[in-house]
Amino acid sequence: MNRADPPAAPQTADALSPLRFEDGTLFLLDQTRLPGAEEWLACRTPADVADAIRRLAVRGAPAIGVAAAYALALAFGDGGGEDDLEARFREAHDRLAATRPTAHNLGWALRQGRDAFERARGGGAGRVYEALLELARRLHREDVEANRRIGRFGAELFDPGDRVLTHCNTGALATAGYGTALGVIRASWEAGRLAQVWVDETRPLLQGSRLTAWELGKLGIPYRLVTDSAAGSLMARRLVERIVVGADRIAANGDVANKIGTYTLAVLAERHGVPFYVAAPLSTFDPETATGADIPIEERDPGELGRLGETPLAPEGAAAANWAFDVTPAALVTAFITDAGILRPPYPEAIAAAFAERWGSGG
Amino acid sequence: MNRADPPAAPQTADALSPLRFEDGTLFLLDQTRLPGAEEWLACRTPADVADAIRRLAVRGAPAIGVAAAYALALAFGDGGGEDDLEARFREAHDRLAATRPTAHNLGWALRQGRDAFERARGGGAGRVYEALLELARRLHREDVEANRRIGRFGAELFDPGDRVLTHCNTGALATAGYGTALGVIRASWEAGRLAQVWVDETRPLLQGSRLTAWELGKLGIPYRLVTDSAAGSLMARRLVERIVVGADRIAANGDVANKIGTYTLAVLAERHGVPFYVAAPLSTFDPETATGADIPIEERDPGELGRLGETPLAPEGAAAANWAFDVTPAALVTAFITDAGILRPPYPEAIAAAFAERWGSGG
Repeated sequence: MNRADPPAAPQTADALSPLRFEDGTLFLLDQTRLPGAEEWLACRTPADVADAIRRLAVRGAPAIGVAAAYALALAFGDGGGEDDLEARFREAHDRLAATRPTAHNLGWALRQGRDAFERARGGGAGRVYEALLELARRLHREDVEANRRIGRFGAELFDPGDRVLTHCNTGALATAGYGTALGVIRASWEAGRLAQVWVDETRPLLQGSRLTAWELGKLGIPYRLVTDSAAGSLMARRLVERIVVGADRIAANGDVANKIGTYTLAVLAERHGVPFYVAAPLSTFDPETATGADIPIEERDPGELGRLGETPLAPEGAAAANWAFDVTPAALVTAFITDAGILRPPYPEAIAAAFAERWGSGG
Repeated sequence: MNRADPPAAPQTADALSPLRFEDGTLFLLDQTRLPGAEEWLACRTPADVADAIRRLAVRGAPAIGVAAAYALALAFGDGGGEDDLEARFREAHDRLAATRPTAHNLGWALRQGRDAFERARGGGAGRVYEALLELARRLHREDVEANRRIGRFGAELFDPGDRVLTHCNTGALATAGYGTALGVIRASWEAGRLAQVWVDETRPLLQGSRLTAWELGKLGIPYRLVTDSAAGSLMARRLVERIVVGADRIAANGDVANKIGTYTLAVLAERHGVPFYVAAPLSTFDPETATGADIPIEERDPGELGRLGETPLAPEGAAAANWAFDVTPAALVTAFITDAGILRPPYPEAIAAAFAERWGSGG
């Protein structure tokens, strides 16, 4: 994996995407370097992409899904001959599947990769490469389209003057483009239904401060940063009209795994009567997982709390617990904003109906 | 103000105090440098101390109160003659009063300084110096004694095996010694009634990571750091039996101003049936302030969210809101742990009774 030149045509804020595929290479905007530097990584193998996913150079459930789809294609793009297509596929698939356990879009994309591989393998490595690349490009395009629909549906829930609180980064950077929760914020802003965004820092990796603030700045949407712990006080002061967050996986009953801190926000929202929305494409819903208790929650390096770059934040060797996600029970979610429309309780039925409408009763 | 040598006799964890007065100089352990470096500041004027309070070299409501008392003495310790004692007192008093608006102990100590000054001024500058120094030394000693009583009372509320969550730093560093909420934790640990402490980071200035973790490490009490936003998930997983925090000011009705994030913890505690205790000496209770709505809340430099040391955390010039404290309504407090015993609802009556018992009905 190498540092790469920026795209020949600089990306506009409106069309920002953290992924592009050119000349047999997946270029990823290295989100660990933002907002200080805009650097692209050139990934030429599935291992390059898996490494980028693991260290969060590319992150956000939808973006991870699309990156994994491109990564499967990379396994067949190097002229490796016709030997053992199954082993090549499986090696790439398993390496990617092992990167991050919580994001549902990853498994969802890999399953479609498996289907495309099965259909194409009779045509040889070249045909498999074409089929997997075609799949990745379709998922890439469809994710952007889904996000724009999410934005349009979500904007209808907002009122002029609303101050909305969001958590983590759910923007163009977290997706193939446009964003989920941040897509709703963009669309609401464009519709004149938003006054200001409260951006919480999102410790420990500061996706709010580093990434969401950066995106909102590029888009010219007014925002103010707050610490994660300020959310309660903001709501008690009646400075928040709505909360919208993304999701890494949504169980069949509507329980939501999302960035650690989401559950805290949902509890506060309920207490203060603030609507709490979860914005996600259907690809983030996991009908195979019954409830939030069944969602695997990634634990990351405790060292993320002990230092920031070169700066120690705590005594050397301080013990820490670092769950990356938490689970918000469906009962705390006012509505899901999806590419298939707004889903309201009861969620098991609403989610099943959305799946049946899109893919038939088999989900 | 100068960097100073460490105390001749190294402080033990058990007797740790962030303040010592020697040779006409107030030495303050510079808490902005912890845990990386243990450096002492030598303060020789009230302005030196005011500067140290403002930039949080010394912090924590009780420690601020004691530091301010010593600072008043410093106004008369420099051989400034007998001219205009009133002006000298007022200049020091007003400079200190303006440093931080929320901590009640500051005004409480300054009022006692005014009383001591009035009683001593007839005896000239030397007598004023002695009286103010005597007051400061008494407040210093009494704060440590109060904290040890708080610890003993609080430990009785704990059960063996308890995992307790605390916020910010309320230890020896935040007081004249021993600590308030962290004093309760120390006493519970010594009494065999504590299994582990959950220490939240306490953004933006990381008093949890930097200071509480450092103190607990010195004391050999097992702890784990978590992000502020993880509190909800910890409680949902039933990993927290109790929460204990300190206070910067407690209104006559029991509303509590404390470090931003305290209110969020109290809301989560109520939802999960986790007892939520506030540990503070009577010097933190303010009978002149009717409710939390009347407590001034300090807003600090928004830049505290935008950088950490030399590391930028957000885009250059990102707008931020940085209230240092929030208000927790009395209804969310299970009990106050004070040096006058445990106070239970109804709080207006319990607080008034504790004041009447200590100081007579006039408070």
